[in-house]
Amino acid sequence: MKIVILGGVAAGAKAAAKARRLLPDANIDLYTDDTHISYSACGLPYYIEGNFEDYRLLLVRSPEDFEKKNVHIHLKSRAMKIIPEAKQVLIQDLNTQRAYLVDYDKLIIAIGARPIIPKIKNVNLPNIFTLRKIEDGIAIKEKALKSKHATIVGAGYIGMEILEALVKQNLKVTIVEYAPYVMTIFDEDMSRLIEEQLNSINDGRFQILTSELVTEFSGDMNGVHTVRTGTGKEFSTDFVVLCAGVTPNVDIAKDAGIDIGLTGAIKVNEKMETNITDIYACGDCVEEHLVVSDTKIWMPLGSNANKEGRTAAINACGGDDRFIGVLGSAVTRCLNLTMSMTGLTEKRAAALGYKPVSVTVTKNDKVGYMPNVNNITLKLTADYETGKILGAQAVGAGDADKRINSLAAALLAGMTVEEFYNNDFTYAPPFSPTIDPLLNAAQILMSKVKQKD
Amino acid sequence: MKIVILGGVAAGAKAAAKARRLLPDANIDLYTDDTHISYSACGLPYYIEGNFEDYRLLLVRSPEDFEKKNVHIHLKSRAMKIIPEAKQVLIQDLNTQRAYLVDYDKLIIAIGARPIIPKIKNVNLPNIFTLRKIEDGIAIKEKALKSKHATIVGAGYIGMEILEALVKQNLKVTIVEYAPYVMTIFDEDMSRLIEEQLNSINDGRFQILTSELVTEFSGDMNGVHTVRTGTGKEFSTDFVVLCAGVTPNVDIAKDAGIDIGLTGAIKVNEKMETNITDIYACGDCVEEHLVVSDTKIWMPLGSNANKEGRTAAINACGGDDRFIGVLGSAVTRCLNLTMSMTGLTEKRAAALGYKPVSVTVTKNDKVGYMPNVNNITLKLTADYETGKILGAQAVGAGDADKRINSLAAALLAGMTVEEFYNNDFTYAPPFSPTIDPLLNAAQILMSKVKQKD
Repeated sequence: MKIVILGGVAAGAKAAAKARRLLPDANIDLYTDDTHISYSACGLPYYIEGNFEDYRLLLVRSPEDFEKKNVHIHLKSRAMKIIPEAKQVLIQDLNTQRAYLVDYDKLIIAIGARPIIPKIKNVNLPNIFTLRKIEDGIAIKEKALKSKHATIVGAGYIGMEILEALVKQNLKVTIVEYAPYVMTIFDEDMSRLIEEQLNSINDGRFQILTSELVTEFSGDMNGVHTVRTGTGKEFSTDFVVLCAGVTPNVDIAKDAGIDIGLTGAIKVNEKMETNITDIYACGDCVEEHLVVSDTKIWMPLGSNANKEGRTAAINACGGDDRFIGVLGSAVTRCLNLTMSMTGLTEKRAAALGYKPVSVTVTKNDKVGYMPNVNNITLKLTADYETGKILGAQAVGAGDADKRINSLAAALLAGMTVEEFYNNDFTYAPPFSPTIDPLLNAAQILMSKVKQKD
Repeated sequence: MKIVILGGVAAGAKAAAKARRLLPDANIDLYTDDTHISYSACGLPYYIEGNFEDYRLLLVRSPEDFEKKNVHIHLKSRAMKIIPEAKQVLIQDLNTQRAYLVDYDKLIIAIGARPIIPKIKNVNLPNIFTLRKIEDGIAIKEKALKSKHATIVGAGYIGMEILEALVKQNLKVTIVEYAPYVMTIFDEDMSRLIEEQLNSINDGRFQILTSELVTEFSGDMNGVHTVRTGTGKEFSTDFVVLCAGVTPNVDIAKDAGIDIGLTGAIKVNEKMETNITDIYACGDCVEEHLVVSDTKIWMPLGSNANKEGRTAAINACGGDDRFIGVLGSAVTRCLNLTMSMTGLTEKRAAALGYKPVSVTVTKNDKVGYMPNVNNITLKLTADYETGKILGAQAVGAGDADKRINSLAAALLAGMTVEEFYNNDFTYAPPFSPTIDPLLNAAQILMSKVKQKD
């Protein structure tokens, strides 16, 4: 039995480890164009921020750990082509540039995603970074420690995390977003609230520019020094981090005849099987099934990648495991602000044909007389016709995300807002108000959905 | 329409406010033997701890707030007898000792619970306190600020909260528990872990004595000065707080022919109706329906009292509202330790006839390289036969309780552990590990329940 795995960050490394445990005698080879495997890419912003000094803390398992268990790790080895009819993969050794063929019985594709490089003049100047791999994190941190001004292009999840990291490293930071508001994955009202709240804690160390398109960088062989926008703004910078989103790596899959979904990522079933026999895919290169709406979504997150890698390996090894999909849960932090969501936003729900009704409450996260009491703003969305909860968004200090997790469980169960209101959440003054904001929101929303006769 | 409410802390005050909104013209009278109404009794330990200086922050609404809305508040007015056949209540004015009769169309009983006074010799000496009312909190705080040594009798929820409060006020504290371990509402393994973890953060400021029965206090007219236990231990103390549990106030209800449940608290249906027409009951004097096992439980908590007061008022005012019951969710904190649970413990599940299987995992609460990473120990219990989740207990620093809330939602939905494993929780390094401890536990527990064919 010969198992070949392409890619080794989260899903690929998980698949390799799981396959090894299931089939102690199989040949397992993992090929990656990267210089590291099995690392927490999501931890890179916190490395840059200075939460820890040694980047090796991000490494979960080393190539040596794998070799000890007889899993062969091939670094700097890029998959160029898959030949399904012969069960072969063409690999290029990036040190020598020479290609060679390997055979597989089962192939697991876990080749991830890559940053989108926006079309900006001189985007290839030195000191214009993206953040995806360990080397990117090391380079950005090194540059940040010798710099005073930084520019971030794009105010989504990664942009927000880099903003926190660079502000904490005492840089002056400008974050530029093309859309009229930050964090556009949220509903507009929540995005505006995020911007307001960030500005309210801004002591002059950062600037958020929205509705601004970066059109041009200028600089010299020492690197970028100026940023220009479409409205004529011009400002100097020591370096730039492009956070304009990511796109799934699908080219070699597509070329091999593997189906790509409408989201642009590889299509798989619950067993992480592609349309081609004995080829599995998992991690950031595949799309997910969104349970709440029974539609597809692309959620390239480490948590999903881990589960998918596990399922792919179990099935590739002859077992039967299913990954039923995701609920769309996500969280990020920028300075003291937590932004979290699960399920559908109101705009996404409307786009999918639901008749969404929402309620937004702003409440204390604990009883008002306790120290460190903070606000949480919670937007809860349900379907008018059925009363079913469709999703929730939370913005605030502290553990806004954990309240979202209670709603995730409710989404998985297909609860109506009325059913959810019957929930019994832990209560003590240091942890929540007597009536949790979740129940406040549910109570109001109950009266906005269609009443049963 | 004449609505009479007996008791005014959480449920009674909530019922009065809700009834006023529903029926602007009804006569609403609230009688209480207390000197305050509408206050957060659960906040008293945090007042003693010094989290805030003015006890009035604990007051939600004042008698004047109510009078402004034409709700008549009668303080120091004790309900002595209910005469259902005449729809009258006998009230005693505690200032004059004189009794008088009032008529009602709808009666709402919200007379709460009282501390249990353990049978200890000289338990009536000065400076031996219980904590229930505002005056108790003021007296304990006043005494604590002038004292060096304190003794707490009983290591349950309230005992733990007082322990934190007094340690934070720089007292040397001895907490004495008759049972072989603290927090006996948890399973024994979790209770032992709580004791271990408390001892590990103990810098000499407190002492936990288990399997020790306090048998005698001695002192003089200035108050208690010595504590003696059954094993012959003797130590001096400046004051004592009795935290030996609470018992529901049911005497006048029982006397009036109102049914009392097996838990010892007043029996009500989902509408908070007692067995006698036009008499409702709510708050700490009533028992709750425990959804997960379809049995009764007595959970005297502010969160439940609020919901029950609301439901009682809606129905008393002619509406139709149901309180389907509780999940058994609770949380407390002692110093940096959070202790939380929902549903059934393993021992309680076994006592109810289930065949419980459990798994206990100890995991990081966030990714290991983040600052302030802490352990959470999570015990998840399911029914072997059906795979249904029965309950969970969590002990650890930080927001262990919010993870319990995700399980509460799962209990409400009646999920199996396999269904729960499909959950999708928010992930980012500052908030959780890639695979949340909840899912680690569920994954292991799945293999311990009866496998479907």
